[in-house]
Amino acid sequence: MSDIVQVNMILVPDMVQLDLTGPFEVLARVPGWQVELVASSLAPVRTDRGLTILPTVTRDTAGPADILVVPGGTGIDTAMVDPDWVRFAHDQAINAKYVFGICTGSFLLAAAGLLTGRRAGAHWQARDLLARFGAIPSHERMVVDGKYYTSGGVTSGIDMALRVVGDVAGKEVAQKIQLQIEYDPQPPFPGGTPFTSPPQIVDAVSLASAQRRATREKLVEQAVAAMRPASGR
Amino acid sequence: MSDIVQVNMILVPDMVQLDLTGPFEVLARVPGWQVELVASSLAPVRTDRGLTILPTVTRDTAGPADILVVPGGTGIDTAMVDPDWVRFAHDQAINAKYVFGICTGSFLLAAAGLLTGRRAGAHWQARDLLARFGAIPSHERMVVDGKYYTSGGVTSGIDMALRVVGDVAGKEVAQKIQLQIEYDPQPPFPGGTPFTSPPQIVDAVSLASAQRRATREKLVEQAVAAMRPASGR
Repeated sequence: MSDIVQVNMILVPDMVQLDLTGPFEVLARVPGWQVELVASSLAPVRTDRGLTILPTVTRDTAGPADILVVPGGTGIDTAMVDPDWVRFAHDQAINAKYVFGICTGSFLLAAAGLLTGRRAGAHWQARDLLARFGAIPSHERMVVDGKYYTSGGVTSGIDMALRVVGDVAGKEVAQKIQLQIEYDPQPPFPGGTPFTSPPQIVDAVSLASAQRRATREKLVEQAVAAMRPASGR
Repeated sequence: MSDIVQVNMILVPDMVQLDLTGPFEVLARVPGWQVELVASSLAPVRTDRGLTILPTVTRDTAGPADILVVPGGTGIDTAMVDPDWVRFAHDQAINAKYVFGICTGSFLLAAAGLLTGRRAGAHWQARDLLARFGAIPSHERMVVDGKYYTSGGVTSGIDMALRVVGDVAGKEVAQKIQLQIEYDPQPPFPGGTPFTSPPQIVDAVSLASAQRRATREKLVEQAVAAMRPASGR
């Protein structure tokens, strides 16, 4: 590894911006780490709730990553069936020293055949579908299998980013960043997982996203189908 | 309050992007809430670690806010001595139903004379300086004084955003969002405040930011001096 640790984060339209911005805040604070946001072009990228972020490089101009980061959201469901993104994620990941998926970011990694036979996490509303790619879904907030670090939904990316920094740059570097960002969380309500939130809250959130779940299931089947030729050779 | 709840978030160069993007993720998920990012122009705004965000409105085109949000960072130290930002924050805040400062965002509110005599929070490395504006600094992660909600450093904005949503839109709405973003945090290390992080970590972070602290102290004195004519009339 050169003196600079190169972190490439994938940035696609309609992603969940906090999947990217939470880990970005942690990773970009490590001395000597350089973070690039990789998109299909240099045009501004609108995330799912309207916050628009500028990429810094494209798939074609991005250098190899020491750490590849794949955030999630609806946009990653789309990227999972886009051969250009699948190929990019595959080629960057196999050469990276660490690969870090957040939320449904693990689906792009799974579609690229990188999580087959591996334990992996994802957003609680999607993680069971990882099994369709031959991965072993986990309910844990942070899952590490070899060089693959995958976390649960959205905010779990902050916890996992601190863990990645701790493992790669050392615990003290992570602890300094934790203090800089004053990360001693105090959620004002108990909950935050399907196991800890009140049942009527879990039911309401599940019901409201039933259509999105159905769409995701179809895209997963498309992505699984697209894997077959490669795995059959 | 009309059917739409208008949330205006201030976006300035060199701010801490997670101060804005953490609360954005929570606030933008509330049904019927519209979030605008207000900058001095519509040019892309580069935050302190290089992530660049597009504003959606300017100070001149922004409508009145039901909820005004002021994130922090070095850029807010600069805004605190910029009469255009001080005036904007003042005029928006006095007409808003709620005002939400994150990290050192409270300094712009303080410089606008809005926190005089009020309890207020800020990043642990800056909060004592709020007293220079006549505010009463608090070590709490979330401080509520009347319509003014101010939080500690960076990630405390996520906790506080959930509290704001709970108070304004109801606890169930906040609990749904907490579950959507899977916010049941598990920091991989204990710490995250000067009271809970190991002493050598606190010392190292303080030492590394001594120059920035000195600069902030000077800017606070400039901002305090600029308050005098108004309060003297």
